Amino acid sequence: MRNLLLMSSSRAANPDYLDHGLAWLSEHFAGKQVLFIPYAGVTVSATDYTAMVAEAFAKIDVKVTGIHEYEDARQAMQEAEAVAVGGGNTYMLLHKLYETGSLDILKRRINEGMPYAGWSAGSNIAGPSIRTTNDMPIIQPRSFNAINAVPFQLNPHFTDAMPEGHRGETRSQRIAEFMVVDNHTPVIGIMEGTALKVQGQHMHLLGDRDGVVFADQQRRTLKAGSNCSHWL
Amino acid sequence: MRNLLLMSSSRAANPDYLDHGLAWLSEHFAGKQVLFIPYAGVTVSATDYTAMVAEAFAKIDVKVTGIHEYEDARQAMQEAEAVAVGGGNTYMLLHKLYETGSLDILKRRINEGMPYAGWSAGSNIAGPSIRTTNDMPIIQPRSFNAINAVPFQLNPHFTDAMPEGHRGETRSQRIAEFMVVDNHTPVIGIMEGTALKVQGQHMHLLGDRDGVVFADQQRRTLKAGSNCSHWL
Repeated sequence: MRNLLLMSSSRAANPDYLDHGLAWLSEHFAGKQVLFIPYAGVTVSATDYTAMVAEAFAKIDVKVTGIHEYEDARQAMQEAEAVAVGGGNTYMLLHKLYETGSLDILKRRINEGMPYAGWSAGSNIAGPSIRTTNDMPIIQPRSFNAINAVPFQLNPHFTDAMPEGHRGETRSQRIAEFMVVDNHTPVIGIMEGTALKVQGQHMHLLGDRDGVVFADQQRRTLKAGSNCSHWL
Repeated sequence: MRNLLLMSSSRAANPDYLDHGLAWLSEHFAGKQVLFIPYAGVTVSATDYTAMVAEAFAKIDVKVTGIHEYEDARQAMQEAEAVAVGGGNTYMLLHKLYETGSLDILKRRINEGMPYAGWSAGSNIAGPSIRTTNDMPIIQPRSFNAINAVPFQLNPHFTDAMPEGHRGETRSQRIAEFMVVDNHTPVIGIMEGTALKVQGQHMHLLGDRDGVVFADQQRRTLKAGSNCSHWL
Protein backbone atom coordinates (compact mmCIF):
# COMPACT_ATOMS: atom_id res chain seq x y z
CA MET A 1 0.00 0.00 0.00
CA ARG A 2 1.65 3.21 -1.16
CA ASN A 3 2.29 5.74 1.56
CA LEU A 4 3.29 9.14 0.18
CA LEU A 5 3.61 12.67 1.49
CA LEU A 6 4.08 15.07 -1.42
CA MET A 7 4.80 18.60 -0.28
CA SER A 8 4.88 21.65 -2.51
CA SER A 9 7.95 23.22 -0.95
CA SER A 10 10.43 23.11 1.89
CA ARG A 11 9.46 26.57 3.08
CA ALA A 12 6.12 28.35 3.34
CA ALA A 13 4.94 31.29 5.47
CA ASN A 14 7.25 30.01 8.23
CA PRO A 15 10.68 30.55 6.72
CA ASP A 16 12.47 27.84 8.76
CA TYR A 17 13.49 24.87 6.69
CA LEU A 18 10.67 22.29 6.51
CA ASP A 19 9.02 23.77 9.61
CA HIS A 20 5.53 24.00 8.16
CA GLY A 21 5.61 20.29 7.33
CA LEU A 22 7.15 18.85 10.50
CA ALA A 23 3.86 17.67 11.99
CA TRP A 24 3.04 15.83 8.76
CA LEU A 25 6.54 14.42 8.46
CA SER A 26 6.50 13.30 12.09
CA GLU A 27 3.37 11.24 11.57
CA HIS A 28 4.57 9.98 8.20
CA PHE A 29 7.95 8.76 9.37
CA ALA A 30 7.09 7.83 12.99
CA GLY A 31 9.74 5.46 14.39
CA LYS A 32 11.53 5.06 11.08
CA GLN A 33 15.06 5.98 10.03
CA VAL A 34 14.98 8.02 6.84
CA LEU A 35 17.26 7.71 3.84
CA PHE A 36 17.58 11.18 2.35
CA ILE A 37 18.21 11.67 -1.38
CA PRO A 38 20.04 14.99 -1.97
CA TYR A 39 20.35 14.47 -5.76
CA ALA A 40 18.24 17.54 -6.67
CA GLY A 41 20.70 19.82 -4.89
CA VAL A 42 22.95 21.52 -7.41
CA THR A 43 24.39 24.53 -5.62
CA VAL A 44 24.59 22.70 -2.28
CA SER A 45 26.76 19.66 -1.51
CA ALA A 46 25.17 16.32 -0.64
CA THR A 47 26.72 16.54 2.82
CA ASP A 48 25.46 20.05 3.57
CA TYR A 49 22.04 19.31 2.17
CA THR A 50 21.67 16.16 4.25
CA ALA A 51 22.86 18.00 7.37
CA MET A 52 20.20 20.68 6.84
CA VAL A 53 17.48 18.04 6.54
CA ALA A 54 18.82 16.06 9.48
CA GLU A 55 18.71 19.19 11.62
CA ALA A 56 15.07 19.80 10.73
CA PHE A 57 14.10 16.15 11.23
CA ALA A 58 15.87 16.09 14.61
CA LYS A 59 13.07 18.33 15.91
CA ILE A 60 10.68 15.41 15.40
CA ASP A 61 13.18 12.75 16.51
CA VAL A 62 13.61 11.27 13.04
CA LYS A 63 17.11 10.04 12.18
CA VAL A 64 18.46 10.77 8.71
CA THR A 65 21.29 9.39 6.60
CA GLY A 66 22.23 10.56 3.12
CA ILE A 67 22.36 8.12 0.23
CA HIS A 68 25.83 9.44 -0.67
CA GLU A 69 27.12 8.02 2.64
CA TYR A 70 26.62 4.48 1.33
CA GLU A 71 28.96 2.70 -1.02
CA ASP A 72 26.09 1.19 -2.98
CA ALA A 73 23.17 3.54 -3.70
CA ARG A 74 21.01 0.68 -4.96
CA GLN A 75 21.53 -1.34 -1.83
CA ALA A 76 20.86 1.68 0.37
CA MET A 77 17.56 2.23 -1.44
CA GLN A 78 16.73 -1.47 -1.20
CA GLU A 79 17.24 -1.53 2.56
CA ALA A 80 15.82 1.88 3.53
CA GLU A 81 13.05 2.00 6.13
CA ALA A 82 11.75 5.22 4.58
CA VAL A 83 12.88 7.68 1.91
CA ALA A 84 12.75 11.48 1.68
CA VAL A 85 13.63 13.34 -1.51
CA GLY A 86 14.41 17.04 -1.31
CA GLY A 87 13.90 19.86 -3.77
CA GLY A 88 16.30 21.55 -6.14
CA ASN A 89 16.53 20.73 -9.82
CA THR A 90 14.14 18.04 -11.01
CA TYR A 91 16.20 17.16 -14.10
CA MET A 92 19.34 16.64 -12.03
CA LEU A 93 17.38 14.57 -9.53
CA LEU A 94 15.96 12.27 -12.19
CA HIS A 95 19.29 12.12 -14.02
CA LYS A 96 21.06 10.90 -10.88
CA LEU A 97 18.32 8.41 -10.01
CA TYR A 98 18.80 6.90 -13.48
CA GLU A 99 22.60 7.08 -13.37
CA THR A 100 22.83 5.32 -10.01
CA GLY A 101 20.30 2.70 -11.05
CA SER A 102 18.24 3.51 -7.98
CA LEU A 103 15.03 4.68 -9.68
CA ASP A 104 13.64 1.22 -10.34
CA ILE A 105 14.38 0.13 -6.80
CA LEU A 106 12.70 3.22 -5.40
CA LYS A 107 9.62 2.53 -7.53
CA ARG A 108 9.41 -1.03 -6.25
CA ARG A 109 9.92 -0.04 -2.61
CA ILE A 110 7.16 2.58 -2.86
CA ASN A 111 4.82 -0.01 -4.36
CA GLU A 112 5.66 -2.32 -1.45
CA GLY A 113 4.54 0.38 1.00
CA MET A 114 7.78 2.00 2.15
CA PRO A 115 6.95 5.55 3.35
CA TYR A 116 8.06 8.21 0.86
CA ALA A 117 8.11 11.95 1.36
CA GLY A 118 9.13 14.55 -1.19
CA TRP A 119 9.05 18.28 -1.56
CA SER A 120 9.28 20.32 -4.74
CA ALA A 121 11.43 18.22 -7.14
CA GLY A 122 10.91 15.28 -4.77
CA SER A 123 7.15 15.59 -5.30
CA ASN A 124 7.46 16.13 -9.03
CA ILE A 125 9.07 12.75 -9.60
CA ALA A 126 6.24 10.89 -7.84
CA GLY A 127 4.07 11.32 -10.94
CA PRO A 128 4.35 9.46 -14.24
CA SER A 129 6.89 11.95 -15.60
CA ILE A 130 8.59 15.26 -14.93
CA ARG A 131 6.73 16.94 -17.80
CA THR A 132 5.13 19.50 -15.47
CA THR A 133 8.18 20.60 -13.52
CA ASN A 134 8.90 24.33 -13.24
CA ASP A 135 12.65 23.80 -13.29
CA MET A 136 15.29 24.69 -15.82
CA PRO A 137 16.52 21.68 -17.86
CA ILE A 138 20.18 22.09 -16.91
CA ILE A 139 20.89 18.44 -17.67
CA GLN A 140 19.20 15.91 -19.91
CA PRO A 141 18.01 12.83 -18.04
CA ARG A 142 17.81 9.52 -19.87
CA SER A 143 14.04 9.90 -19.95
CA PHE A 144 11.34 12.22 -18.58
CA ASN A 145 9.59 9.16 -17.12
CA ALA A 146 9.59 9.10 -13.33
CA ILE A 147 8.28 7.02 -10.41
CA ASN A 148 4.63 6.84 -11.48
CA ALA A 149 3.41 6.24 -7.92
CA VAL A 150 0.31 8.34 -8.65
CA PRO A 151 -1.56 8.57 -11.97
CA PHE A 152 -1.39 12.35 -12.26
CA GLN A 153 1.33 14.90 -12.88
CA LEU A 154 2.42 17.10 -9.99
CA ASN A 155 3.01 20.82 -10.24
CA PRO A 156 4.53 22.04 -6.98
CA HIS A 157 4.86 25.76 -6.12
CA PHE A 158 1.62 26.29 -8.01
CA THR A 159 0.72 29.95 -8.44
CA ASP A 160 -1.19 32.15 -10.84
CA ALA A 161 0.83 35.20 -9.87
CA MET A 162 3.03 36.86 -12.47
CA PRO A 163 5.66 39.56 -11.95
CA GLU A 164 4.28 42.83 -13.27
CA GLY A 165 5.11 43.56 -16.91
CA HIS A 166 6.24 40.00 -17.54
CA ARG A 167 5.16 38.63 -20.92
CA GLY A 168 6.10 34.98 -20.48
CA GLU A 169 3.48 32.28 -20.07
CA THR A 170 1.50 31.99 -16.83
CA ARG A 171 1.62 28.68 -15.00
CA SER A 172 -1.92 27.89 -16.13
CA GLN A 173 -0.95 28.55 -19.75
CA ARG A 174 1.99 26.19 -19.41
CA ILE A 175 -0.23 23.47 -18.00
CA ALA A 176 -2.82 24.15 -20.72
CA GLU A 177 -0.04 23.38 -23.22
CA PHE A 178 0.61 20.12 -21.42
CA MET A 179 -3.08 19.20 -21.70
CA VAL A 180 -2.96 19.69 -25.47
CA VAL A 181 -0.09 17.23 -25.73
CA ASP A 182 -1.46 14.72 -23.21
CA ASN A 183 -5.15 14.91 -22.41
CA HIS A 184 -5.24 11.62 -20.50
CA THR A 185 -3.05 12.59 -17.57
CA PRO A 186 -4.48 15.04 -15.02
CA VAL A 187 -2.19 17.65 -13.47
CA ILE A 188 -2.53 18.61 -9.81
CA GLY A 189 -1.04 21.94 -8.80
CA ILE A 190 -0.24 22.32 -5.09
CA MET A 191 0.43 25.66 -3.49
CA GLU A 192 3.22 26.59 -1.08
CA GLY A 193 2.52 25.19 2.41
CA THR A 194 0.31 22.34 1.21
CA ALA A 195 0.84 18.65 0.49
CA LEU A 196 -0.89 15.58 -0.87
CA LYS A 197 -1.06 12.62 1.50
CA VAL A 198 -1.60 9.32 -0.29
CA GLN A 199 -2.31 6.09 1.55
CA GLY A 200 -3.25 3.24 -0.75
CA GLN A 201 -6.43 4.33 -2.53
CA HIS A 202 -6.96 7.38 -0.29
CA MET A 203 -5.67 10.89 -0.90
CA HIS A 204 -6.12 14.13 1.04
CA LEU A 205 -4.93 17.66 0.43
CA LEU A 206 -3.16 18.88 3.59
CA GLY A 207 -2.74 22.54 4.51
CA ASP A 208 -4.80 25.70 4.40
CA ARG A 209 -4.79 26.52 0.71
CA ASP A 210 -6.78 25.09 -2.17
CA GLY A 211 -5.06 23.18 -4.93
CA VAL A 212 -5.90 23.03 -8.61
CA VAL A 213 -6.68 20.10 -10.91
CA PHE A 214 -6.32 20.36 -14.66
CA ALA A 215 -8.11 17.54 -16.45
CA ASP A 216 -10.41 17.10 -19.45
CA GLN A 217 -9.47 20.59 -20.65
CA GLN A 218 -10.89 22.05 -17.44
CA ARG A 219 -9.49 23.65 -14.36
CA ARG A 220 -11.06 22.66 -11.07
CA THR A 221 -10.42 23.67 -7.49
CA LEU A 222 -9.16 21.06 -5.03
CA LYS A 223 -10.50 22.22 -1.66
CA ALA A 224 -8.03 22.58 1.18
CA GLY A 225 -8.35 19.60 3.50
CA SER A 226 -10.57 17.67 1.13
CA ASN A 227 -10.59 14.00 0.30
CA CYS A 228 -9.50 13.84 -3.32
CA SER A 229 -9.09 10.08 -3.67
CA HIS A 230 -11.00 9.93 -6.96
CA TRP A 231 -7.91 11.36 -8.72
CA LEU A 232 -5.97 8.23 -7.83
CA MET B 1 28.29 34.85 -42.35
CA ARG B 2 25.59 34.23 -39.74
CA ASN B 3 22.84 36.82 -39.61
CA LEU B 4 20.60 36.48 -36.59
CA LEU B 5 18.01 38.55 -34.79
CA LEU B 6 17.19 36.97 -31.43
CA MET B 7 14.34 38.70 -29.67
CA SER B 8 13.26 38.08 -26.10
CA SER B 9 9.55 38.14 -26.78
CA SER B 10 6.83 38.86 -29.30
CA ARG B 11 5.31 41.52 -27.09
CA ALA B 12 6.81 44.21 -24.88
CA ALA B 13 5.44 47.50 -23.55
CA ASN B 14 3.53 47.89 -26.82
CA PRO B 15 1.03 45.06 -26.60
CA ASP B 16 0.52 44.61 -30.37
CA TYR B 17 2.00 41.42 -31.72
CA LEU B 18 5.67 41.88 -32.68
CA ASP B 19 5.20 45.66 -32.88
CA HIS B 20 8.22 46.58 -30.76
CA GLY B 21 10.47 44.60 -33.11
CA LEU B 22 9.10 45.60 -36.51
CA ALA B 23 11.87 48.11 -37.28
CA TRP B 24 14.49 45.48 -36.50
CA LEU B 25 12.65 42.80 -38.46
CA SER B 26 12.18 45.14 -41.42
CA GLU B 27 15.92 45.73 -41.70
CA HIS B 28 16.72 42.08 -41.01
CA PHE B 29 14.40 40.65 -43.66
CA ALA B 30 14.50 43.52 -46.22
CA GLY B 31 13.32 42.27 -49.61
CA LYS B 32 13.17 38.62 -48.53
CA GLN B 33 10.25 36.23 -48.33
CA VAL B 34 10.14 34.62 -44.91
CA LEU B 35 9.46 30.98 -44.08
CA PHE B 36 7.74 30.93 -40.69
CA ILE B 37 8.12 27.95 -38.34
CA PRO B 38 5.05 27.70 -36.07
CA TYR B 39 6.23 24.50 -34.33
CA ALA B 40 6.45 26.09 -30.86
CA GLY B 41 2.72 26.89 -30.94
CA VAL B 42 0.82 24.37 -28.86
CA THR B 43 -2.51 26.01 -28.09
CA VAL B 44 -2.69 27.75 -31.49
CA SER B 45 -2.90 26.04 -34.88
CA ALA B 46 -0.09 26.37 -37.42
CA THR B 47 -2.47 28.19 -39.76
CA ASP B 48 -3.67 30.70 -37.17
CA TYR B 49 -0.17 31.28 -35.84
CA THR B 50 1.23 31.91 -39.32
CA ALA B 51 -1.67 34.26 -40.14
CA MET B 52 -0.93 36.29 -37.01
CA VAL B 53 2.74 36.62 -37.96
CA ALA B 54 1.90 37.39 -41.60
CA GLU B 55 -0.42 40.18 -40.44
CA ALA B 56 2.36 41.74 -38.36
CA PHE B 57 4.98 41.32 -41.09
CA ALA B 58 2.62 42.87 -43.67
CA LYS B 59 3.14 46.19 -41.87
CA ILE B 60 6.76 46.07 -43.03
CA ASP B 61 5.96 44.57 -46.46
CA VAL B 62 7.52 41.22 -45.66
CA LYS B 63 5.73 38.18 -47.13
CA VAL B 64 5.35 35.09 -44.99
CA THR B 65 4.55 31.44 -45.68
CA GLY B 66 4.22 28.74 -43.05
CA ILE B 67 6.36 25.60 -43.21
CA HIS B 68 3.21 23.49 -42.76
CA GLU B 69 1.99 24.75 -46.16
CA TYR B 70 4.75 22.76 -47.91
CA GLU B 71 4.64 19.05 -48.57
CA ASP B 72 8.29 18.62 -47.66
CA ALA B 73 9.47 20.55 -44.59
CA ARG B 74 13.11 19.77 -45.34
CA GLN B 75 12.87 21.09 -48.85
CA ALA B 76 11.05 24.21 -47.67
CA MET B 77 13.85 24.86 -45.17
CA GLN B 78 16.46 24.17 -47.83
CA GLU B 79 14.96 26.70 -50.24
CA ALA B 80 13.89 29.44 -47.81
CA GLU B 81 15.19 32.96 -48.40
CA ALA B 82 14.89 33.68 -44.68
CA VAL B 83 13.44 31.91 -41.62
CA ALA B 84 11.52 33.21 -38.61
CA VAL B 85 10.77 30.99 -35.62
CA GLY B 86 8.06 32.05 -33.20
CA GLY B 87 7.64 31.50 -29.49
CA GLY B 88 5.56 29.01 -27.57
CA ASN B 89 6.97 25.84 -26.09
CA THR B 90 10.68 25.28 -26.68
CA TYR B 91 10.51 21.51 -26.16
CA MET B 92 7.72 21.14 -28.71
CA LEU B 93 9.62 23.35 -31.14
CA LEU B 94 12.81 21.31 -30.88
CA HIS B 95 10.87 18.04 -30.93
CA LYS B 96 9.21 18.99 -34.23
CA LEU B 97 12.46 20.24 -35.77
CA TYR B 98 13.97 16.83 -35.01
CA GLU B 99 10.90 14.88 -36.10
CA THR B 100 10.67 16.63 -39.47
CA GLY B 101 14.39 16.29 -40.03
CA SER B 102 14.62 20.04 -40.62
CA LEU B 103 16.96 20.97 -37.75
CA ASP B 104 20.17 19.98 -39.53
CA ILE B 105 19.13 21.85 -42.65
CA LEU B 106 18.27 24.95 -40.63
CA LYS B 107 21.70 24.79 -38.95
CA ARG B 108 23.45 24.59 -42.31
CA ARG B 109 21.40 27.40 -43.87
CA ILE B 110 22.16 29.67 -40.91
CA ASN B 111 25.86 28.91 -41.25
CA GLU B 112 25.60 29.81 -44.92
CA GLY B 113 24.24 33.24 -44.02
CA MET B 114 20.49 32.89 -44.45
CA PRO B 115 18.79 35.52 -42.23
CA TYR B 116 17.22 34.00 -39.13
CA ALA B 117 14.96 35.70 -36.62
CA GLY B 118 13.49 34.16 -33.52
CA TRP B 119 11.62 35.27 -30.48
CA SER B 120 11.28 33.51 -27.14
CA ALA B 121 11.50 29.76 -27.98
CA GLY B 122 12.81 30.76 -31.42
CA SER B 123 15.72 32.54 -29.72
CA ASN B 124 16.30 29.76 -27.22
CA ILE B 125 17.10 27.22 -29.92
CA ALA B 126 19.79 29.44 -31.48
CA GLY B 127 22.19 28.47 -28.67
CA PRO B 128 24.01 25.16 -28.23
CA SER B 129 21.06 23.64 -26.34
CA ILE B 130 17.69 24.40 -24.76
CA ARG B 131 19.08 23.87 -21.25
CA THR B 132 18.20 27.43 -20.20
CA THR B 133 14.63 27.60 -21.46
CA ASN B 134 11.92 28.76 -19.05
CA ASP B 135 9.32 26.46 -20.56
CA MET B 136 7.56 23.42 -19.22
CA PRO B 137 8.90 20.13 -20.66
CA ILE B 138 5.55 18.97 -22.02
CA ILE B 139 7.23 16.69 -24.54
CA GLN B 140 10.64 15.02 -24.60
CA PRO B 141 12.69 15.99 -27.66
CA ARG B 142 15.24 13.51 -29.02
CA SER B 143 17.97 15.69 -27.52
CA PHE B 144 18.35 19.05 -25.75
CA ASN B 145 20.98 20.00 -28.38
CA ALA B 146 19.84 22.82 -30.64
CA ILE B 147 21.13 24.99 -33.50
CA ASN B 148 24.39 26.13 -31.89
CA ALA B 149 24.59 29.27 -34.06
CA VAL B 150 26.05 31.19 -31.11
CA PRO B 151 28.39 29.82 -28.41
CA PHE B 152 26.24 30.87 -25.45
CA GLN B 153 22.91 29.83 -24.01
CA LEU B 154 19.96 32.19 -24.39
CA ASN B 155 17.54 33.01 -21.62
CA PRO B 156 14.67 35.07 -23.08
CA HIS B 157 12.11 36.88 -20.89
CA PHE B 158 14.89 37.42 -18.40
CA THR B 159 13.72 38.93 -15.12
CA ASP B 160 14.69 38.97 -11.49
CA ALA B 161 11.15 39.68 -10.38
CA MET B 162 9.33 37.10 -8.29
CA PRO B 163 5.64 37.02 -7.39
CA GLU B 164 5.27 37.96 -3.73
CA GLY B 165 5.34 35.06 -1.31
CA HIS B 166 6.65 32.66 -3.95
CA ARG B 167 9.28 30.23 -2.66
CA GLY B 168 10.41 28.72 -5.95
CA GLU B 169 13.83 29.49 -7.40
CA THR B 170 14.53 32.93 -8.92
CA ARG B 171 15.71 33.06 -12.51
CA SER B 172 19.23 33.86 -11.37
CA GLN B 173 19.20 30.86 -9.04
CA ARG B 174 18.13 28.64 -11.91
CA ILE B 175 20.93 29.93 -14.12
CA ALA B 176 23.40 29.57 -11.22
CA GLU B 177 22.42 25.88 -11.17
CA PHE B 178 23.19 25.69 -14.89
CA MET B 179 26.64 27.18 -14.29
CA VAL B 180 27.42 24.46 -11.75
CA VAL B 181 26.64 21.80 -14.32
CA ASP B 182 28.32 23.54 -17.27
CA ASN B 183 30.85 26.25 -16.44
CA HIS B 184 32.13 26.54 -20.01
CA THR B 185 29.00 27.89 -21.68
CA PRO B 186 27.98 31.47 -20.87
CA VAL B 187 24.28 32.31 -20.52
CA ILE B 188 22.90 35.59 -21.84
CA GLY B 189 19.59 36.73 -20.39
CA ILE B 190 17.66 39.22 -22.51
CA MET B 191 14.79 41.26 -21.15
CA GLU B 192 11.39 41.89 -22.74
CA GLY B 193 11.65 44.37 -25.60
CA THR B 194 15.30 43.65 -26.35
CA ALA B 195 17.14 41.50 -28.87
CA LEU B 196 20.59 40.32 -29.85
CA LYS B 197 21.65 41.13 -33.40
CA VAL B 198 24.44 38.88 -34.67
CA GLN B 199 26.23 39.50 -37.97
CA GLY B 200 29.22 37.27 -38.47
CA GLN B 201 31.61 38.08 -35.63
CA HIS B 202 29.67 41.14 -34.48
CA MET B 203 26.91 41.26 -31.90
CA HIS B 204 24.87 44.12 -30.44
CA LEU B 205 22.17 44.28 -27.82
CA LEU B 206 19.18 46.11 -29.29
CA GLY B 207 16.55 47.90 -27.22
CA ASP B 208 16.42 50.10 -24.14
CA ARG B 209 17.09 47.60 -21.39
CA ASP B 210 20.29 46.02 -20.16
CA GLY B 211 20.87 42.32 -20.51
CA VAL B 212 22.72 39.95 -18.20
CA VAL B 213 25.64 37.61 -18.80
CA PHE B 214 26.37 34.67 -16.54
CA ALA B 215 29.85 33.30 -17.06
CA ASP B 216 32.80 32.15 -14.93
CA GLN B 217 30.52 32.00 -11.88
CA GLN B 218 29.83 35.72 -12.22
CA ARG B 219 26.92 37.83 -13.25
CA ARG B 220 27.69 40.83 -15.45
CA THR B 221 25.52 43.52 -16.99
CA LEU B 222 25.23 43.73 -20.77
CA LYS B 223 24.62 47.42 -21.46
CA ALA B 224 21.62 48.33 -23.62
CA GLY B 225 22.84 49.20 -27.13
CA SER B 226 26.34 47.92 -26.48
CA ASN B 227 28.65 45.99 -28.75
CA CYS B 228 28.97 42.59 -27.11
CA SER B 229 30.86 40.77 -29.84
CA HIS B 230 33.39 39.29 -27.46
CA TRP B 231 30.76 36.79 -26.28
CA LEU B 232 30.73 35.27 -29.75
